[in-house]
Amino acid sequence: MAASASYRALQGLRTMAMACRRPVQQHVQQRLIKRGASAVTFTRERQKYSHIERGDFGTVGAAEIEAFEAMLPGRVLKDEDEMVSYTEDWLGQYRGPGSVVLKPKTTEEASEILKFCHANTLAVNLQGGNTGLVGGSVPLHDEVIISTSLMNNVISFDDISGILMCEAGCILEVLDRYLEDRGFIMPLDLGAKGTCQIGGNVSTNAGGVRLLRYGSLHGTVLGLEAVLADGTVVNTLSGCRKDNTGYDLKQMFIGAEGSLGLITKVSIQAPPRPQAVNVAFLGANTYEDVLNIFKASKRSLGEILSACEFLDLESMQLTSENLGLTCPLGDYPFYVLLETHGSNDGHDEEKLQACLEDGMEQGFIADGTIAQDRTQVNDLWLIRESITSALKEDGEVYKYDVSLPLPQLYELVETMRERTEGLAVHCCGYGHLGDGNLHLNITSKEYDEDLLAIIEPYVYDFTAGVGGSISAEHGLGLMKVNHIHYSKSPEAVAVMRQIKSALDPKGILNPYKTVCAN
Amino acid sequence: MAASASYRALQGLRTMAMACRRPVQQHVQQRLIKRGASAVTFTRERQKYSHIERGDFGTVGAAEIEAFEAMLPGRVLKDEDEMVSYTEDWLGQYRGPGSVVLKPKTTEEASEILKFCHANTLAVNLQGGNTGLVGGSVPLHDEVIISTSLMNNVISFDDISGILMCEAGCILEVLDRYLEDRGFIMPLDLGAKGTCQIGGNVSTNAGGVRLLRYGSLHGTVLGLEAVLADGTVVNTLSGCRKDNTGYDLKQMFIGAEGSLGLITKVSIQAPPRPQAVNVAFLGANTYEDVLNIFKASKRSLGEILSACEFLDLESMQLTSENLGLTCPLGDYPFYVLLETHGSNDGHDEEKLQACLEDGMEQGFIADGTIAQDRTQVNDLWLIRESITSALKEDGEVYKYDVSLPLPQLYELVETMRERTEGLAVHCCGYGHLGDGNLHLNITSKEYDEDLLAIIEPYVYDFTAGVGGSISAEHGLGLMKVNHIHYSKSPEAVAVMRQIKSALDPKGILNPYKTVCAN
Repeated sequence: MAASASYRALQGLRTMAMACRRPVQQHVQQRLIKRGASAVTFTRERQKYSHIERGDFGTVGAAEIEAFEAMLPGRVLKDEDEMVSYTEDWLGQYRGPGSVVLKPKTTEEASEILKFCHANTLAVNLQGGNTGLVGGSVPLHDEVIISTSLMNNVISFDDISGILMCEAGCILEVLDRYLEDRGFIMPLDLGAKGTCQIGGNVSTNAGGVRLLRYGSLHGTVLGLEAVLADGTVVNTLSGCRKDNTGYDLKQMFIGAEGSLGLITKVSIQAPPRPQAVNVAFLGANTYEDVLNIFKASKRSLGEILSACEFLDLESMQLTSENLGLTCPLGDYPFYVLLETHGSNDGHDEEKLQACLEDGMEQGFIADGTIAQDRTQVNDLWLIRESITSALKEDGEVYKYDVSLPLPQLYELVETMRERTEGLAVHCCGYGHLGDGNLHLNITSKEYDEDLLAIIEPYVYDFTAGVGGSISAEHGLGLMKVNHIHYSKSPEAVAVMRQIKSALDPKGILNPYKTVCAN
Repeated sequence: MAASASYRALQGLRTMAMACRRPVQQHVQQRLIKRGASAVTFTRERQKYSHIERGDFGTVGAAEIEAFEAMLPGRVLKDEDEMVSYTEDWLGQYRGPGSVVLKPKTTEEASEILKFCHANTLAVNLQGGNTGLVGGSVPLHDEVIISTSLMNNVISFDDISGILMCEAGCILEVLDRYLEDRGFIMPLDLGAKGTCQIGGNVSTNAGGVRLLRYGSLHGTVLGLEAVLADGTVVNTLSGCRKDNTGYDLKQMFIGAEGSLGLITKVSIQAPPRPQAVNVAFLGANTYEDVLNIFKASKRSLGEILSACEFLDLESMQLTSENLGLTCPLGDYPFYVLLETHGSNDGHDEEKLQACLEDGMEQGFIADGTIAQDRTQVNDLWLIRESITSALKEDGEVYKYDVSLPLPQLYELVETMRERTEGLAVHCCGYGHLGDGNLHLNITSKEYDEDLLAIIEPYVYDFTAGVGGSISAEHGLGLMKVNHIHYSKSPEAVAVMRQIKSALDPKGILNPYKTVCAN
């Protein structure tokens, strides 16, 4: 096959210097350890949520504090400035007063706390790394916050089966490094990996960038331990890959966003770490070309394809403007990041080259670059993973995380861009193309009810109209608690409420969010 | 690398004629369409089950039959000889009288029947292809049998996303052929594929031979439609790969063995059909060598490994003695079947060759053969998949399906062989090595309570003692309904019962089995 001009361009780019590396992750993490008085408006004072009144729960007074301090000596936070990183989310979009932060170290302590809260009908807010994006991880009113951050031990790892058992507060990236030393990899990866906790990942059924390859947590989590609202410990931790003895209870807790119980331990199937990782970053002229890249990559890369992400030009420009990142390619309407995980570098490179050659010959790849080493791999990923932080720099972000049929996926972005013109600072589309998962993000300088009214419920109507899901991976949290009907039938919601009522009859776990008992 | 003597032997075997092909599948299927009076003892007359009394349910009389016939004209079977293939299992080990067989064609009809049964407190037995192995698919007493066999349409298939939607009665192999024409593959495969139905597969969370590669149905099923005990239709069918809106209700029905509702439709993620399939059949001298083959195959074959099955010599001899199959290798204590699914035949063959060379050089592969074409691939699989049928030819089969840690997996077979010596005809160990799933099967000429007392509860005690599961993939059914405590804690069982009570308050769905409300 004769090399085309475009293909030579691709080859030429293979050795280009990558100039986009910036310490964005530190920047994000600094936001999380802030201390002192908060400038964030209480969520309950925002018009959208002002109708959600405090439930008929008990209150935390001196006697309750004393009881908690007896259970968790030195691990009860009650001053507002100590509590600030637990009472507001990292994007500064949701904030509740809360009443107290409790930090158990063991399942027994967590059980004791919940038994007490249940007996006294105290509302509880369960919290992992507090990296959620839908207001699910922080209180709305004066809920007792239970943080899993001190439950952070690896319990066991079996290097034949690849089964990892650990406590809920283990940070995703820490677990991945632990597994790296042993030749394995965590089956999920997401931008917040340096802060998010595995218990929170499982509670929210976090998706991330490698779901395409390793599947969802419903498949990779083998068992878990959870504490129910009344303090009962339900242990379904398993060292087995297969177990068909009764209902697969762990599944109810995966994605329940803490409304059915506090996940305290997790066992998860870790795949072998790939011996070869390749990343290509490609430019495309149309959304149709983006779809063609995906189809071609599925065909040519087959079993080694581990991620197929896309972003539009506006997302790319945002990371340049707000974070100073540099695009490794010229301006194109769309960019696609392809990643392969394989066991044989030679075979994988051959497959990737063939895939890209084919795309350039057929014209649906306009330009591209392939990372030459681990640093370049990280740099290319950094572009994709920095978009969330870059958006925040604009001010207020209206975040939507939807599943859509691929042919209609980008139409929603184009439509919203038209609708919000003049009011929005940016309207960006990016996400997990391989999973049909679009992140639509619109920004304004300050919170704007008029802009919000233009976006919602239109975005939900559009999504439901094409058979999509209004929450692909972020969950319902507080943001979408009243919108579940767009994606679930009344009968399904009724069954969810039956389960919620059965397991949490007083409705103390994460009230006001996800699935309420009534 | 210099070719060793063993490696030359392997190469020599690559072109050997395969002589093991026999029409075993027809043989199995003929059993299922038998008609006329049954010689099988009613399950309730066997000592093990004789204490399970009929529940306090209504009875089916002339009025109920008339009502059913009005709902399902011409699709109500009530004569014993018409009902026989529905009232006993294909192995002839479980049989109930039942009262009537109902064959709805639509969800609406299924809903109407269940509404009627619920109103009249009639116990119901839900049935797919009736290929289960634990007595879950046939009645114990006079349950109304609802068969999904006429609900067998493909609803839609999306060849970009690979998402298939179909009715519950579609036969697994028919679906796989449907997908084959479109370049995709069903994510599960099992010996009963020619008869089992996808609804039953999902209800029992069937595992099968490719779980190692494509994961469990908890990961691949994207949504389903189910009819609850009272006739309510819960539709969570989804065309999305990702959907985090509320609890993942479908998960409760996956593996519930019909005790929470009748699955009527399924949406499932089909992977692209592999462009290259390779199968190797290997001999090993010790169980340690078997484990070494598995470890080496994970390392060398990585992402293309799609099955790692094993059988012992006794299993192999059984297929020769009872079905006339011929082993492609000499006698070895163990045999391992490795399969690869990949997108590049050249790459895959290179990886497989390297894996086998390594194993023969290091001595843990004693001998082996690689299938040269699709017929040989099928022939090698036939050996593995015929063991269940071959066992049945002995007479009575005591079947155990357990998950065990790999190092202890074969110890259970050796121990049971010693314990049952003199009483058993055969004691065979085989199964899904890659998933830690052993099928332990012991046979006798006739049902023997003394032999059973030697096997149980020892087999369950052993399994629980090493942290295994007493049902890896077959489910609890009737056989293990009272043994759930070996694998699940009292707290977990209590939660299962809460869910059962909430969804089926009268306990009419598949009573006496799996998880009973109390």
